Amino acid sequence: MRIAVLNGPNLNLLGVREPDLYGRTTLSQLENSLAVVARDLGVSIECSQANGEGALIDIVHGYRGRIDGAVVNLGAYSHTSLALRDALVSVDVPFVEVHVTNVYAREAERHHSMLASAAVGVVVGLGTQGYELALRGLVATLGARGTIT
Amino acid sequence: MRIAVLNGPNLNLLGVREPDLYGRTTLSQLENSLAVVARDLGVSIECSQANGEGALIDIVHGYRGRIDGAVVNLGAYSHTSLALRDALVSVDVPFVEVHVTNVYAREAERHHSMLASAAVGVVVGLGTQGYELALRGLVATLGARGTIT
Amino acid sequence: MRIAVLNGPNLNLLGVREPDLYGRTTLSQLENSLAVVARDLGVSIECSQANGEGALIDIVHGYRGRIDGAVVNLGAYSHTSLALRDALVSVDVPFVEVHVTNVYAREAERHHSMLASAAVGVVVGLGTQGYELALRGLVATLGARGTIT
Amino acid sequence: MRIAVLNGPNLNLLGVREPDLYGRTTLSQLENSLAVVARDLGVSIECSQANGEGALIDIVHGYRGRIDGAVVNLGAYSHTSLALRDALVSVDVPFVEVHVTNVYAREAERHHSMLASAAVGVVVGLGTQGYELALRGLVATLGARGTIT
Amino acid sequence: MRIAVLNGPNLNLLGVREPDLYGRTTLSQLENSLAVVARDLGVSIECSQANGEGALIDIVHGYRGRIDGAVVNLGAYSHTSLALRDALVSVDVPFVEVHVTNVYAREAERHHSMLASAAVGVVVGLGTQGYELALRGLVATLGARGTIT
Amino acid sequence: MRIAVLNGPNLNLLGVREPDLYGRTTLSQLENSLAVVARDLGVSIECSQANGEGALIDIVHGYRGRIDGAVVNLGAYSHTSLALRDALVSVDVPFVEVHVTNVYAREAERHHSMLASAAVGVVVGLGTQGYELALRGLVATLGARGTIT
Amino acid sequence: MRIAVLNGPNLNLLGVREPDLYGRTTLSQLENSLAVVARDLGVSIECSQANGEGALIDIVHGYRGRIDGAVVNLGAYSHTSLALRDALVSVDVPFVEVHVTNVYAREAERHHSMLASAAVGVVVGLGTQGYELALRGLVATLGARGTIT
Amino acid sequence: MRIAVLNGPNLNLLGVREPDLYGRTTLSQLENSLAVVARDLGVSIECSQANGEGALIDIVHGYRGRIDGAVVNLGAYSHTSLALRDALVSVDVPFVEVHVTNVYAREAERHHSMLASAAVGVVVGLGTQGYELALRGLVATLGARGTIT
Amino acid sequence: MRIAVLNGPNLNLLGVREPDLYGRTTLSQLENSLAVVARDLGVSIECSQANGEGALIDIVHGYRGRIDGAVVNLGAYSHTSLALRDALVSVDVPFVEVHVTNVYAREAERHHSMLASAAVGVVVGLGTQGYELALRGLVATLGARGTIT
Amino acid sequence: MRIAVLNGPNLNLLGVREPDLYGRTTLSQLENSLAVVARDLGVSIECSQANGEGALIDIVHGYRGRIDGAVVNLGAYSHTSLALRDALVSVDVPFVEVHVTNVYAREAERHHSMLASAAVGVVVGLGTQGYELALRGLVATLGARGTIT
Amino acid sequence: MRIAVLNGPNLNLLGVREPDLYGRTTLSQLENSLAVVARDLGVSIECSQANGEGALIDIVHGYRGRIDGAVVNLGAYSHTSLALRDALVSVDVPFVEVHVTNVYAREAERHHSMLASAAVGVVVGLGTQGYELALRGLVATLGARGTIT
Amino acid sequence: MRIAVLNGPNLNLLGVREPDLYGRTTLSQLENSLAVVARDLGVSIECSQANGEGALIDIVHGYRGRIDGAVVNLGAYSHTSLALRDALVSVDVPFVEVHVTNVYAREAERHHSMLASAAVGVVVGLGTQGYELALRGLVATLGARGTIT
Repeated sequence: MRIAVLNGPNLNLLGVREPDLYGRTTLSQLENSLAVVARDLGVSIECSQANGEGALIDIVHGYRGRIDGAVVNLGAYSHTSLALRDALVSVDVPFVEVHVTNVYAREAERHHSMLASAAVGVVVGLGTQGYELALRGLVATLGARGTIT
Repeated sequence: MRIAVLNGPNLNLLGVREPDLYGRTTLSQLENSLAVVARDLGVSIECSQANGEGALIDIVHGYRGRIDGAVVNLGAYSHTSLALRDALVSVDVPFVEVHVTNVYAREAERHHSMLASAAVGVVVGLGTQGYELALRGLVATLGARGTIT
Repeated sequence: MRIAVLNGPNLNLLGVREPDLYGRTTLSQLENSLAVVARDLGVSIECSQANGEGALIDIVHGYRGRIDGAVVNLGAYSHTSLALRDALVSVDVPFVEVHVTNVYAREAERHHSMLASAAVGVVVGLGTQGYELALRGLVATLGARGTIT
Repeated sequence: MRIAVLNGPNLNLLGVREPDLYGRTTLSQLENSLAVVARDLGVSIECSQANGEGALIDIVHGYRGRIDGAVVNLGAYSHTSLALRDALVSVDVPFVEVHVTNVYAREAERHHSMLASAAVGVVVGLGTQGYELALRGLVATLGARGTIT
Repeated sequence: MRIAVLNGPNLNLLGVREPDLYGRTTLSQLENSLAVVARDLGVSIECSQANGEGALIDIVHGYRGRIDGAVVNLGAYSHTSLALRDALVSVDVPFVEVHVTNVYAREAERHHSMLASAAVGVVVGLGTQGYELALRGLVATLGARGTIT
Repeated sequence: MRIAVLNGPNLNLLGVREPDLYGRTTLSQLENSLAVVARDLGVSIECSQANGEGALIDIVHGYRGRIDGAVVNLGAYSHTSLALRDALVSVDVPFVEVHVTNVYAREAERHHSMLASAAVGVVVGLGTQGYELALRGLVATLGARGTIT
Repeated sequence: MRIAVLNGPNLNLLGVREPDLYGRTTLSQLENSLAVVARDLGVSIECSQANGEGALIDIVHGYRGRIDGAVVNLGAYSHTSLALRDALVSVDVPFVEVHVTNVYAREAERHHSMLASAAVGVVVGLGTQGYELALRGLVATLGARGTIT
Repeated sequence: MRIAVLNGPNLNLLGVREPDLYGRTTLSQLENSLAVVARDLGVSIECSQANGEGALIDIVHGYRGRIDGAVVNLGAYSHTSLALRDALVSVDVPFVEVHVTNVYAREAERHHSMLASAAVGVVVGLGTQGYELALRGLVATLGARGTIT
Repeated sequence: MRIAVLNGPNLNLLGVREPDLYGRTTLSQLENSLAVVARDLGVSIECSQANGEGALIDIVHGYRGRIDGAVVNLGAYSHTSLALRDALVSVDVPFVEVHVTNVYAREAERHHSMLASAAVGVVVGLGTQGYELALRGLVATLGARGTIT
Repeated sequence: MRIAVLNGPNLNLLGVREPDLYGRTTLSQLENSLAVVARDLGVSIECSQANGEGALIDIVHGYRGRIDGAVVNLGAYSHTSLALRDALVSVDVPFVEVHVTNVYAREAERHHSMLASAAVGVVVGLGTQGYELALRGLVATLGARGTIT
Repeated sequence: MRIAVLNGPNLNLLGVREPDLYGRTTLSQLENSLAVVARDLGVSIECSQANGEGALIDIVHGYRGRIDGAVVNLGAYSHTSLALRDALVSVDVPFVEVHVTNVYAREAERHHSMLASAAVGVVVGLGTQGYELALRGLVATLGARGTIT
Repeated sequence: MRIAVLNGPNLNLLGVREPDLYGRTTLSQLENSLAVVARDLGVSIECSQANGEGALIDIVHGYRGRIDGAVVNLGAYSHTSLALRDALVSVDVPFVEVHVTNVYAREAERHHSMLASAAVGVVVGLGTQGYELALRGLVATLGARGTIT
């Protein structure tokens, strides 16, 4: 089973950006620890990050027929990008949406996700460990459904 | 560390009620499997369920000074009950909100949670395994913060 | 065929409460006259009333696998309780919603029903005789569909 | 006592139009069976249907001083026509509003009725038998009030 | 100068319909007294009334190239009919909108007029004498502009 | 019978301010021509103008028990001042609201009047002659009701 | 294959009404040129126009079992008439909605169509040639689906 | 004169719950000090508290024909419970609504009260002394009106 | 301790204006009786009233460094004046907002106060005695906080 | 005459992505068939597609002074991108907006287009043939206006 | 060139009022430093401040035909006063709107300006130096346009 | 002190694009004149422009720890991009937002800025000289705060 981990705009600054809010784990530390979890779960993962909506769409398109599920944190685009929802639906890859912070306790612009209604599930506010929980949840869900490869 | 698991209205019918939507795991099966996870995590758990808003408030009040954190699925009251948010805040117990189904893919009445802005985090749509993920996430978060007992 | 009649908050005061609005028939007079109608229709009925949302959910859960249809007037909870809609849907019992007064001619809070979209039908504003009409309508509808028992 | 039964736009196609939604009883079958009920109730009825808002207003004006009450299903005009509410109020004829389908389980445009706040009552979702229930409810209500003729 | 006076739905019942609200002057009495005013003002008038939106559109189309201005009270259609605004604009006839009652002191549905933004002016709440005021205002306005004939 | 004519903010600039919109009649010309009309109608008038909300309230309070009716154009305060509606209601003086321009064809802020629901009537868009029409309409209405003096 | 072309209120004035907006092609010129296109496409067409909502519903009812598809421009009723959508759905005739002008660049009242969600497609703003495009698009779509006759 | 004091959900935790917000007076201290005030005012009081909406309705029903007025703080139910407003209206007991904190300076969910429009008055933000002020205000108001007993 | 009592627009007519709504106590009677209460409480009061927003702002500015707290009823300006909230906040004087009538049972325009979120508390609907209650509440609150002088 | 055809995000997957919704014609098949149509119409076309908003803006800027008109389907950006409307307006190129599916029959997010009010026209729901219709409509419109080259 | 600087309600307290928000520069210090800037720019300035809406309107009217442009900070009236926008438009004086604080980072009531759409430009959040920037921007803009004197 | 000047989508066309709206100064002319101002102010500037949201985020990330403040005009992204606000906040660089045109006098989509609440200040509608004013305002503000370098 092949899982993608996709991070969106400003998440390259994880661990550096507003650490009181987002924590001090950097993106590469996070990706490394997810790789360990993935190995435990017997799945392979590939991690990507981009700041551009178009670049993220291109990455998602690359999942087509090759990736069984995705853990995605599309940052601010989660709240504004219909095109990214369309991209994820286009390639027919089940995904779990993650947010590091509790978006419901922040500004109103972050309360609605364009992605959530198309997601398998959503994990919010549990810090960077939320990615691990999402990965575990996704793999368990996919296990129950069967995979492409 | 002492964790409460609280289920709200209609969740006594878990496994029986609309199984295509909510799955076939019953509430007692769920509580048993959470007990196993809790033991692994080295925490004790206590599980409760009630259908009445007042009964749930009473249970929450009982957490005061005795419970370190809670995993709560308050069912439909999540979307309508300010009194339950007040109760959880009153006893100052950090909690993670769980929903078995993806509420964002259902009716508009389920898109807004009265609890979420006061929660540590939210786990949505990952079936009954969402409780386990929430429990793991909560215990890890509390571990980083220290506990009462 | 077994039909439940369920009355919600403040309907224990029927006949006493604001009689110019709700009429002078008491709840027990109403239940007695519905028993007569039921006998004519060849169905059995059981009548309940409660003021608590949780108590009403418990009663509804008791319908499961035992009741073929319900005539419900959930009073003010009709307009605020998602949990009661969930309960009715959970036990898979077709129901007709009744209101004694014309809720559309009263305050805006009463114009929207949380139950109506899950109901078979709605009877509004025809006084306490509305229960009888709802009962007749429900039995005829169920007759056309077949019943559990 | 003289009762009018008024059907609005597209109800001439009853029994033919979307039968899964509206049933297979035609308008003339419905009017015939209402005539039987009326005879039982000891009232006379007159039935009309029109597709035009103006034609319906003209029919309603004809009720003035001649008709004691009306059972009306004004179809889509129920949701858009203030002029028809004005017409019914102008001639001072108490009426019960009927909808064959459960409008609250359909598109948002059908959730609000322009007529309902001026009606005696509303019967929704009980199929074509809803007219009979409305007729019985109306006659009983008028009986309690006294009539013109 | 040739002025049309156009009355819409239910205004044929003027003087009869809800007299406490609309007064006791009938439509023909009103039209007669407007004829007297018109004579004083040195203009000719033609008066029409219809209950149907289509019939009213047909009447308005007949104004084309023949009528210099209109006093219109389109009743409930004022609040719902874009087609009638289009008709009045299509024939390029300046008009003053009249309402017998103070629509701003009545139900919210009557607070917005579809016609008003295309009108020369609006006279509201001054009873049936409002037509005379509108006629005087219109003739004075047209006098300042020049006319077709 | 004693009638007040009250003009609000910026109407001292009438005839000078945006003449394409408001016309070229100055406030004193308008007041003079209204005096002529008043004489014809056999009523006395007193005219005031102020730019301040408080000053206007003081003027209105001065009407108490001395003035039978008022023609008021409160300019922009019509759309924002609840205090002026309260003042007019406090002194129990029937009034007709006038606007020189067609407020419904201008910015959205001008579409709603705080005064209109408390007015006898409203005359909009007929230029400065609208005051005369309002005065005639008011005197006729008061005549039918009787006056204080 | 038999195609209906239906024009609604005020479109009888096409070519005459506001020509800068709607162009100078009259309705009969338009219908003639559509007949030529129809002949090329090997389909027969029948063209109707009416100003009344009821009259238009009657025409649509006449399509039942006789017409394979329709090109409709219901003018202002497109934005207000649920009854006409119901009529088109009742007779189960696929249709393409046309607007001569770009309704999205005009008043807000024209931005929402009651018909569009039930249409095959919509052609907006391309002038009277939009009918031809709609006809071609409809015929091609129906060709792919098969027809009644 | 007999006055009820009714406290709703979470108010059993008064003095303990979020003391910076709600103060350090406990519910029983508050009830005792209100008893002293009541004695001064020459009225008897009875105090109740419950966390359940149904339990509170039951208490209110018990006021019927026995209680002259009530001071109520229904906590979060003030903002969500139509059923409790109905209960208070059903027993026809005048009441003053109290809130310990300034609800208008807190979350938007607390800005609207379901009870206020049915209350005699409202006292907000003056801490636990607000109950005493409400009691004094209620007794004075009832004194002016006369009482049941 | 020095307390200001400030009344806004139209409150000079207290006792005279709509007595069924506002009661028959005049403003000077009210101010006199508040002076008696103040003496009992051992505080000095100064009372002002003005109808103009600017005049009220000037009065409030005069409180700066001289007044310890204020009881304010700014009438209709409570619902529309951001400038008066700014003025009260500018001089840093704690205040209690009073309304004689129950604003929540009146028109929607009176349901929202611009002042309330900046107030210590609000007393609504308890007639002119509400000022005394507010004064007592304010003095008690200030006593607990300490004062300027 | 030189026409651009511009496709936005996810349209590179046309024919592959959700074929039940978007059909089985690929983007290059579509572009080829449009080239044939263009040749027939005697115009040249150039086709582009990009997934990034910035990349699409760059392409549009390249139209400046070189392209006479455009057929654009900007996919999800149609509903969210003000920057792309600005780009199209900046280069002053008339365009027709196309959507393959009937966006009005899909999620609410797709009902409003940011582009439509600046477009010549809109063709919706007619599948990939909608591009051809838009191209024909655009060329005919431009022919009537004259072109740059 | 003659420039007016107009300050509205509560700005007489500049430097004293909430200094953390508004800074410690007093109004007269500000006006003096603007005089220096004006001299550098070769323009004359006159500065005014008032707390009353009517007084401000009077000042603005005094600009007529004498002032070439204005820098205005109307404080809270910016958000509520249509009358002041009308006044500024009435005298046809181009103006730049200034706010000392960043109104977009404060309460929602301050996010919308009634003046902004009629202004040349807006300078927000740059403290009291914002007046100087606005003055420079206004003078440069007027220089490009030419002036009255 | 090091200041960045960042321009967003379509601003590469400044001076060319809609010159009546945006003026005739090109982007490079603007950047050159800002360089002169910067030299006068004793600060260094670096100017960038991009059309892509991702490209702009990348540029902003490059400011981290190197730039003291920024003058940004993000064009249409100002109104839609939460990701760019996040980027600016992530790198903790104070910024002033500029708009060349008066966005409040244009379409509603431009009335709200996603950036403004996170900005130091906003300069709107003063043409390309607005950048210079923003630069001066920013440097003065930063001077008062101290800088990184």
